[in-house]
Amino acid sequence: MIPAVEKAFRQVKALKIQGAEAVAREMVRALAEEMKAVEAGSREDFLRRMKKTAVVLTSARPTEPALRHAMRFMLFQARKNPSQDAGELKKAVAREAKAFEKTALENKAKIALFGSRLVPHGASVLVHCHSSTIVRVLKKAADDGKRIRVYCTETRPRYQGRVTARELGDYGIKTTLVVDSAANYVLSRMKDTDVVLVGADAITATGDLVNKVGTSLIAAAANEHGIPLYSCTATHKYDPLTLYGVPELIEMRPREEIIDRGMRGFGKVDVLNPAFDVTPARHVAAYVTEIGVLPPQALATAVWKEYGLDKEELF
Amino acid sequence: MIPAVEKAFRQVKALKIQGAEAVAREMVRALAEEMKAVEAGSREDFLRRMKKTAVVLTSARPTEPALRHAMRFMLFQARKNPSQDAGELKKAVAREAKAFEKTALENKAKIALFGSRLVPHGASVLVHCHSSTIVRVLKKAADDGKRIRVYCTETRPRYQGRVTARELGDYGIKTTLVVDSAANYVLSRMKDTDVVLVGADAITATGDLVNKVGTSLIAAAANEHGIPLYSCTATHKYDPLTLYGVPELIEMRPREEIIDRGMRGFGKVDVLNPAFDVTPARHVAAYVTEIGVLPPQALATAVWKEYGLDKEELF
Amino acid sequence: MIPAVEKAFRQVKALKIQGAEAVAREMVRALAEEMKAVEAGSREDFLRRMKKTAVVLTSARPTEPALRHAMRFMLFQARKNPSQDAGELKKAVAREAKAFEKTALENKAKIALFGSRLVPHGASVLVHCHSSTIVRVLKKAADDGKRIRVYCTETRPRYQGRVTARELGDYGIKTTLVVDSAANYVLSRMKDTDVVLVGADAITATGDLVNKVGTSLIAAAANEHGIPLYSCTATHKYDPLTLYGVPELIEMRPREEIIDRGMRGFGKVDVLNPAFDVTPARHVAAYVTEIGVLPPQALATAVWKEYGLDKEELF
Amino acid sequence: MIPAVEKAFRQVKALKIQGAEAVAREMVRALAEEMKAVEAGSREDFLRRMKKTAVVLTSARPTEPALRHAMRFMLFQARKNPSQDAGELKKAVAREAKAFEKTALENKAKIALFGSRLVPHGASVLVHCHSSTIVRVLKKAADDGKRIRVYCTETRPRYQGRVTARELGDYGIKTTLVVDSAANYVLSRMKDTDVVLVGADAITATGDLVNKVGTSLIAAAANEHGIPLYSCTATHKYDPLTLYGVPELIEMRPREEIIDRGMRGFGKVDVLNPAFDVTPARHVAAYVTEIGVLPPQALATAVWKEYGLDKEELF
Amino acid sequence: MIPAVEKAFRQVKALKIQGAEAVAREMVRALAEEMKAVEAGSREDFLRRMKKTAVVLTSARPTEPALRHAMRFMLFQARKNPSQDAGELKKAVAREAKAFEKTALENKAKIALFGSRLVPHGASVLVHCHSSTIVRVLKKAADDGKRIRVYCTETRPRYQGRVTARELGDYGIKTTLVVDSAANYVLSRMKDTDVVLVGADAITATGDLVNKVGTSLIAAAANEHGIPLYSCTATHKYDPLTLYGVPELIEMRPREEIIDRGMRGFGKVDVLNPAFDVTPARHVAAYVTEIGVLPPQALATAVWKEYGLDKEELF
Amino acid sequence: MIPAVEKAFRQVKALKIQGAEAVAREMVRALAEEMKAVEAGSREDFLRRMKKTAVVLTSARPTEPALRHAMRFMLFQARKNPSQDAGELKKAVAREAKAFEKTALENKAKIALFGSRLVPHGASVLVHCHSSTIVRVLKKAADDGKRIRVYCTETRPRYQGRVTARELGDYGIKTTLVVDSAANYVLSRMKDTDVVLVGADAITATGDLVNKVGTSLIAAAANEHGIPLYSCTATHKYDPLTLYGVPELIEMRPREEIIDRGMRGFGKVDVLNPAFDVTPARHVAAYVTEIGVLPPQALATAVWKEYGLDKEELF
Repeated sequence: MIPAVEKAFRQVKALKIQGAEAVAREMVRALAEEMKAVEAGSREDFLRRMKKTAVVLTSARPTEPALRHAMRFMLFQARKNPSQDAGELKKAVAREAKAFEKTALENKAKIALFGSRLVPHGASVLVHCHSSTIVRVLKKAADDGKRIRVYCTETRPRYQGRVTARELGDYGIKTTLVVDSAANYVLSRMKDTDVVLVGADAITATGDLVNKVGTSLIAAAANEHGIPLYSCTATHKYDPLTLYGVPELIEMRPREEIIDRGMRGFGKVDVLNPAFDVTPARHVAAYVTEIGVLPPQALATAVWKEYGLDKEELF
Repeated sequence: MIPAVEKAFRQVKALKIQGAEAVAREMVRALAEEMKAVEAGSREDFLRRMKKTAVVLTSARPTEPALRHAMRFMLFQARKNPSQDAGELKKAVAREAKAFEKTALENKAKIALFGSRLVPHGASVLVHCHSSTIVRVLKKAADDGKRIRVYCTETRPRYQGRVTARELGDYGIKTTLVVDSAANYVLSRMKDTDVVLVGADAITATGDLVNKVGTSLIAAAANEHGIPLYSCTATHKYDPLTLYGVPELIEMRPREEIIDRGMRGFGKVDVLNPAFDVTPARHVAAYVTEIGVLPPQALATAVWKEYGLDKEELF
Repeated sequence: MIPAVEKAFRQVKALKIQGAEAVAREMVRALAEEMKAVEAGSREDFLRRMKKTAVVLTSARPTEPALRHAMRFMLFQARKNPSQDAGELKKAVAREAKAFEKTALENKAKIALFGSRLVPHGASVLVHCHSSTIVRVLKKAADDGKRIRVYCTETRPRYQGRVTARELGDYGIKTTLVVDSAANYVLSRMKDTDVVLVGADAITATGDLVNKVGTSLIAAAANEHGIPLYSCTATHKYDPLTLYGVPELIEMRPREEIIDRGMRGFGKVDVLNPAFDVTPARHVAAYVTEIGVLPPQALATAVWKEYGLDKEELF
Repeated sequence: MIPAVEKAFRQVKALKIQGAEAVAREMVRALAEEMKAVEAGSREDFLRRMKKTAVVLTSARPTEPALRHAMRFMLFQARKNPSQDAGELKKAVAREAKAFEKTALENKAKIALFGSRLVPHGASVLVHCHSSTIVRVLKKAADDGKRIRVYCTETRPRYQGRVTARELGDYGIKTTLVVDSAANYVLSRMKDTDVVLVGADAITATGDLVNKVGTSLIAAAANEHGIPLYSCTATHKYDPLTLYGVPELIEMRPREEIIDRGMRGFGKVDVLNPAFDVTPARHVAAYVTEIGVLPPQALATAVWKEYGLDKEELF
Repeated sequence: MIPAVEKAFRQVKALKIQGAEAVAREMVRALAEEMKAVEAGSREDFLRRMKKTAVVLTSARPTEPALRHAMRFMLFQARKNPSQDAGELKKAVAREAKAFEKTALENKAKIALFGSRLVPHGASVLVHCHSSTIVRVLKKAADDGKRIRVYCTETRPRYQGRVTARELGDYGIKTTLVVDSAANYVLSRMKDTDVVLVGADAITATGDLVNKVGTSLIAAAANEHGIPLYSCTATHKYDPLTLYGVPELIEMRPREEIIDRGMRGFGKVDVLNPAFDVTPARHVAAYVTEIGVLPPQALATAVWKEYGLDKEELF
Repeated sequence: MIPAVEKAFRQVKALKIQGAEAVAREMVRALAEEMKAVEAGSREDFLRRMKKTAVVLTSARPTEPALRHAMRFMLFQARKNPSQDAGELKKAVAREAKAFEKTALENKAKIALFGSRLVPHGASVLVHCHSSTIVRVLKKAADDGKRIRVYCTETRPRYQGRVTARELGDYGIKTTLVVDSAANYVLSRMKDTDVVLVGADAITATGDLVNKVGTSLIAAAANEHGIPLYSCTATHKYDPLTLYGVPELIEMRPREEIIDRGMRGFGKVDVLNPAFDVTPARHVAAYVTEIGVLPPQALATAVWKEYGLDKEELF
């Protein structure tokens, strides 16, 4: 790898670049740069090296579906290009890398538009954790003149929900912060709760949602009250490996996020700190994606149709 | 009121005495002392003054069912005593006040015994918040040689779950602390979770459970997995006013429990901090009480039968 | 039977006196009058004749649980009276007959009080059919200063819901009339629907509710949305014969209520016109009775305890 | 627009032409006629004008998914035609317009065939409202020698169910008319109810069914009894705008349909008269369409695949 | 123990006397005989010895709730007798022992009567395993002229369902035998299935049903179809120890019931052969008992009220 | 037909060749052989005869979806071949017939791989009936070093589950045999049950699973406990006729499988012996196929996309 790419790789690995989209964008850029530098004699040689680089870059964050999706998408585009000339392919890859970034932005705008239509005027909305997509959805709803009230869970242990609350409050949206455990109080007593909005860390072939721990609790409660939960996310969070039975691994985070190092008396207490949990497809009303508002059971086939990735690639 | 009673009254009012049982015990003692000091010419006079005192003492913590229950129980005992002599009644009230304390202890032992039988050897147990009754149940199970693993939610905002975790860990029970949002992860991934145990702040006539906020979320999730949730509590948490349609009020606690005063940027963010939420009867497998293990729908009739309070008293 | 009693009997039989309570009241009066006229030599003779009369009067409306309850209650009171003197028993029966009427009124007031407490300020309420008890509950809520909005189904085929709507509208309560089929639209779109209120034609030993046809549809839909349905009714609607497996018969009403005689083209169309349907206990949040707000599964045992009728009477 | 087209437009707008199919057919004819008259110099010019006309014609009934679908389909066919000659395109549009009508008829025959196979010999069938498609399904089942019994709800406020009952009765099928509220009585007591059949006014991307008000009540009850509800309808009722989050608007109909003008005493009573309600996908066993019997979650992707409409068109 | 009692004890222990009722009857007889032979100087002495004997006799079949109930009931009757004379108490016990047998018969007749009323004319009935009570219920229904069809599961491993099928077939009732696994086929395809009837081996304080293995599978499926499952049984199957949290133990039966000794090739295969399983209260429509048709949640309180056993006895 | 083909046809008809795959393989071979022998003058003639032969061969086992699928697939391949030369088509059909067998093997390997990934280390697995695919899945999991425990139902009446148990036990996997009725005991008491695995006899367009009788009982119970049930099967079990409303017929098997001829006393007892039952899509977590792990609602569209069979063929 050329030094710039290696640096990007290390930064991703060291969690200095965070967020599914930022990571994917950085690695797509790195892939294009590396391929620009590469000396390839033929189409075959170029594609072989590109695949190898993609595999390496993916390994910087092996649990990130969006990164896997981005690398696979770039390869797919390169292969579709019929040119036999390695130089031509280089340029094509560079063009695709730019397009990737632009498309990502356009997709976010689409999701914000589609999602905002699902938030009626006068609605109360419950949001768990932080997601820039969700914030855009709600700002769009506010921009359209809808009067809404948003309840944000604080989202222990790292309090990402406080960020959501501050961003929305600063934008002039009526915002209320609650502890995570108060979610069902909000759903049941505030009778006007209309929708629950969450993001997505990964989506499986059967439509299950892997997201910030606690999402599945809120989803079960929302289901009891007949309140729809929408996951707003680009389809690159769909993890095609799950089509082949590969389980989505749940990241375990450090003890210190829950028990500060200085706290006394916890010597005999273990800590379990999963970052995510799994919400079954039957508790997700729909995925709000750049393709449209899709029922969970149809997401995999819709993505398959839209992006048509070749299967051998996936093993 | 005599000075000692007034002091007790003020301490309860100022939250210096806390916990349903401690409050009830203190006020029963105060009632007996006050009645000892009172000058009553006749049975009627004595009973009239006793009722008045009971009403006043109840007002020290009007949202506490256990206190209401205790005052009503003491009056009920005095009335059952056929004596016409006020002096005799004084002595009887003093005896009942002592018996009350002893009975409370015996009841706790019974609940610990009954509850521990519901925890099988090798079980995993999920506990929300802190309750001295739950801790006794689990210690009894451990004393009986059962190997168990207890998951404690930290219980935001006041972290009472950390107390539970420390007490159990110190007793040599395998204990794991998790954030509140990880409850469903524990229920679904740890396949050996056998029971969920919680306490009770109040129980309604239809068997609904008012308990620490978050209980209803865990109950909905446990129900999805077919895992029983038991509320371990003495029957004095049953609130007979709910039989007459009076709603159980949910205490709202201060903003500062969630957002520290010093935190910046929350000027436009509201806070909602309910102390409790309501778990519907259909999500409670049983109440583990001093009478026995009762289905929620039968609790009110069982208590009615056991303590037979006269109804006019309740309005 | 004396002429006045025979007349009352015929009026009830000919449906000239209608409504469960009116019928029960009339027949209790008739029973007392008949027993006043009877020549009985002994306590045994008196009670034997009273039972015979009660059985006859019950037969004027054999499908009416409230009538059956009233006759049984009167007999029960007479038997509890230890007097051996038939003359004394006569007077006692007359006193009880008067008390019956007064108690019925007091019970209605209690139900109105208890029920109104279940209707929160700002609530939307869905009401099916007409019931004077429900109207009292809602007027009491309005009298207490609660701002409510009531949706009334028109209640085909006889449009009793229009009566409810007019009575509430005239009282100054915000009232909206909808067709029966719009019930779920109201429940799902009007997010602030808080409670569904219905009366009761009969209640079974397992807590099932027999009420105006359509109640079970609304109950199933309310259950989907997590909205409680309360049946407000005196306990005399409980039918003790169901404890012995006797099924509650559903009255079939005439074709003409649905298809006017003059309508053409329906010669080959049958009509089925059930007056009632059965709502399973699991869809009834509680029965709001003069005893209190009871879970459906506890109603039979609570009534049993409260009125303690001797069992041999029931066969 | 030429006068004939303008007339058709006005008739549709004034509700003189009714029914989703009749409207779509009329507007397809109008589109072909208008395009026949148009003077277009090039392919581009022709297509541009055709789109403009389609948009105008759609606006005659903006809430009708079948019309929107038809216009889009015609445009799609024209674009697929590679000819550069505007004259040739004119002829092609005329041919497609004729084919559209023929296809609609063939589709109805397919739905009748597929739907009839879902009605077993000896079945009882519950039908809500009137739909010519449902009537065809049932006649086909009868033609095949199946002995069936059909229960028709009268369908307040406009009694379309009476039309269904008469048509089936006249055809020699055993038919029973009930009030809308008796639907659950039919489902629960008549144990041999095998299927519920309804039409569709619109279908959303997540498979929800928008249909005559009351459908969602029956669907919830059928679901409780494990009885399948099939919606028999051509796929043109699928509304692709819902894929982009646009909510399906529910038409509110006039007060007079429920309360006759002459009726006294309703001065203080509001009326809410929604024409449709929304049945969630989980309560729809399948959509019986010209493509086949599809699970609700797969309808959007199946239609997408079958008709492959280009997306930009949809914004 | 006198020889006759010892013999009875041994026969029960060696499973030579089987069936809950036969065992209880035999041991009640034995208790009376033993007490007849005993030399007791005083009331206290008599009661002390009687308790001791009861405890010993109970130990002949410690997993049998009906036996435990019977012994406790006999003791309870003896204690209620105020006589100070041991001779008088002997006679009283002998009288009660006879009454016990008669009451058992009368109770069976009541259950048959109540249960038969729940089986409508024309019904299909699914029966699991064999129970003489169920057979009586069905014969009573047939005697009343009801035309019914009964489906019997064969009930592996011991095929008790074949006995049920033969008994009903011989009585002239239309009877169909199916394998256990066909239960849901019967419930779903035979649309006219009206009720499922089973017996009971034990009932818990929360209303759960312990019965022949497979009952819980059928109950879950019946619940899916909205078909009621009734457990027909005398209340002596209620196990009061469960009120105190004592779990109902499930008997494990020998491997040879499933794999004949002679079968080859099973050397590396384990066998698990539970005799019973637990059906949750929410899947039991009602218990049909001698007291009446009771909702599961009310059974414990109803029995408590009816038989009022003193609690200290239970520890 | 040539003699070899006729013989194969007769063997399949006489059930001498069994198992969906063996039958499909045999008939594909027979089709190729017959087409090799046929004298066809043109492409059209060849294809016409091939279709005719395929229809005849399908009739050897008309209830077998895999056979129908195989014949249709072979025809589809032949038609895709553009050659006009009948001799060339013969060779192509022969090649495809060989490929069919190879693909079937590869598909099994894929299913074993995908399925094994769904079985976690330390899992308990419940298996109903016998399926060579399921056995491969479990052996693969064991080969990967996972320690698992498998519970096999014996699967009355033909005890195919014993075969499963023996095969797994012989492979060194911990295996436990239970009666069919003990399935829920295993699911509820053995807390570590992680997955239920079954095969498939047919799959419908709406994702319902037709499989060995009893599957639907286990599926309903697994659903109650939140335990996923996977059906592992190649997609050729999908029956495209169900897309057109054709119901999947359930084979009725002989009385003698349940009641041995020699058994006495069953003269008046009927026997119903369905081979299969239907598990609704909502109780199937996913189909594990050679395409991947698919939600039931997406199977039909995924197969449609993958194999794209022309529709006219299906009528």
